[in-house]
Amino acid sequence: MRREITGFSNPLIKRVRSLREKKHRKREGLFLAEGLRILTEAREAGFLPEMLFRCTDRDAHSLEIALEGEVLAAGGDVIETSADILSKLSGKDNPQTVIGVYREMATPLESLDRNSAQIWLVAQAMRDPGNLGTMLRTGDAVGAGGLILLDDCTDPFSVEAVRASMGAIFTQKLVQCRWDEFLPWLREGAGQLVGTSLQTDNDYQEGRYTAPCFILTGNEAQGLPEAYEAECDLLVKMPMLGKADSLNAAVATAVMAYEVLNQFRRG
Amino acid sequence: MRREITGFSNPLIKRVRSLREKKHRKREGLFLAEGLRILTEAREAGFLPEMLFRCTDRDAHSLEIALEGEVLAAGGDVIETSADILSKLSGKDNPQTVIGVYREMATPLESLDRNSAQIWLVAQAMRDPGNLGTMLRTGDAVGAGGLILLDDCTDPFSVEAVRASMGAIFTQKLVQCRWDEFLPWLREGAGQLVGTSLQTDNDYQEGRYTAPCFILTGNEAQGLPEAYEAECDLLVKMPMLGKADSLNAAVATAVMAYEVLNQFRRG
Repeated sequence: MRREITGFSNPLIKRVRSLREKKHRKREGLFLAEGLRILTEAREAGFLPEMLFRCTDRDAHSLEIALEGEVLAAGGDVIETSADILSKLSGKDNPQTVIGVYREMATPLESLDRNSAQIWLVAQAMRDPGNLGTMLRTGDAVGAGGLILLDDCTDPFSVEAVRASMGAIFTQKLVQCRWDEFLPWLREGAGQLVGTSLQTDNDYQEGRYTAPCFILTGNEAQGLPEAYEAECDLLVKMPMLGKADSLNAAVATAVMAYEVLNQFRRG
Repeated sequence: MRREITGFSNPLIKRVRSLREKKHRKREGLFLAEGLRILTEAREAGFLPEMLFRCTDRDAHSLEIALEGEVLAAGGDVIETSADILSKLSGKDNPQTVIGVYREMATPLESLDRNSAQIWLVAQAMRDPGNLGTMLRTGDAVGAGGLILLDDCTDPFSVEAVRASMGAIFTQKLVQCRWDEFLPWLREGAGQLVGTSLQTDNDYQEGRYTAPCFILTGNEAQGLPEAYEAECDLLVKMPMLGKADSLNAAVATAVMAYEVLNQFRRG
């Protein structure tokens, strides 16, 4: 259904704005994605928003018109509103022209087809939404199957994580589970578990990677717990020539993932 | 000098808090760095804060005591204050136990010794402080000499950029200049300018890199201007197997920098 909302105090605006907070997302099972680029990625991956907010103050892009048509055809709502109200929804002064409200999706670990991709990213207790979203984006680029979130990670459906994913939240499978569930599942089938760590002298370029390769990255501040490192098939380290012995977690994952991809490309 | 501040309305607290805003940083030529880890990196790199704020509510770490001694010996101030006031300075609920106020440092382009390192990172119109700080951190890890900021980049001395740099703001040289200054300087001496771009079919692993290698990364949304790409000695592309043809700018820089480092390591 298409309709117009002009008032800030409209209950739907309040409800959608509340999705910026995790407790409301979990209660509703919904999340926000912003911007035509990300919404188009979503559409191409087969995801349509239940509600699409668009700005009446600007002319619609052809991709936006196509998206609107599909949302309406699927029984969703298209809500026309002002730039000011979109600002309120997005929390940004310069809001994107479209905002979508999507149903949260999750892949149960047991239904994951590990052989559907050569690379899987695994993050343990990742705290920063920007890092989490960036890992999804990197996963998309290296042709990974998805991101497995272990233990208490930041919510992948936060506005910041979705934004940093640049749409990869829709194209990468997303699993949330505990280490105690992940490890037995992993060992039921093929899969090389590779941890990046400072507690090893193995150069990451000397490692020999085999598909499906699960690249495990630990918490930003603590790294991987020792017990998790002990279960890895291979622990490797990137050379660090500087004063600080560390890389950003999303950067370390990407450098590692490209090394694995490069080895697979060479065959 | 050592002193104690207990009131939120103390003018020094207001002044230091104002350094969270760019216009006040530029007026004072000062910036904030938070946390013992970063302040220790700074000290090891030869930088002491003009003012050091520490929390009276907690026992001091031995590194903190050593830092305090050096700050006092150098004529700086050590200000003891409460966790609440530190929170106000840092803008975080859970503040670090120490905050330092440092003088902004900059390296003029003409005094940069290009042969002092094999790798230099160059960012053009980088907008995100997290990306900028992450690039500094990556530069430190790959043994780069520094980061050259071209055109209108986000302020490298913002709290977010300094935090993301994890101290590399103190260990990497930082140059801020325009493209019209950079290019003539570059061409006066040795230096390979390598751009990462989607407008090429050259695989980044096929490129042959020579030191000093300047890795040029463009704006997060627009990439490099065409005219800048035309001046590169080499344009290369990372393989992108996903739906979206893009990587986070700081991630792309890191993947590229590690490839260059790996080639140099092989000799």
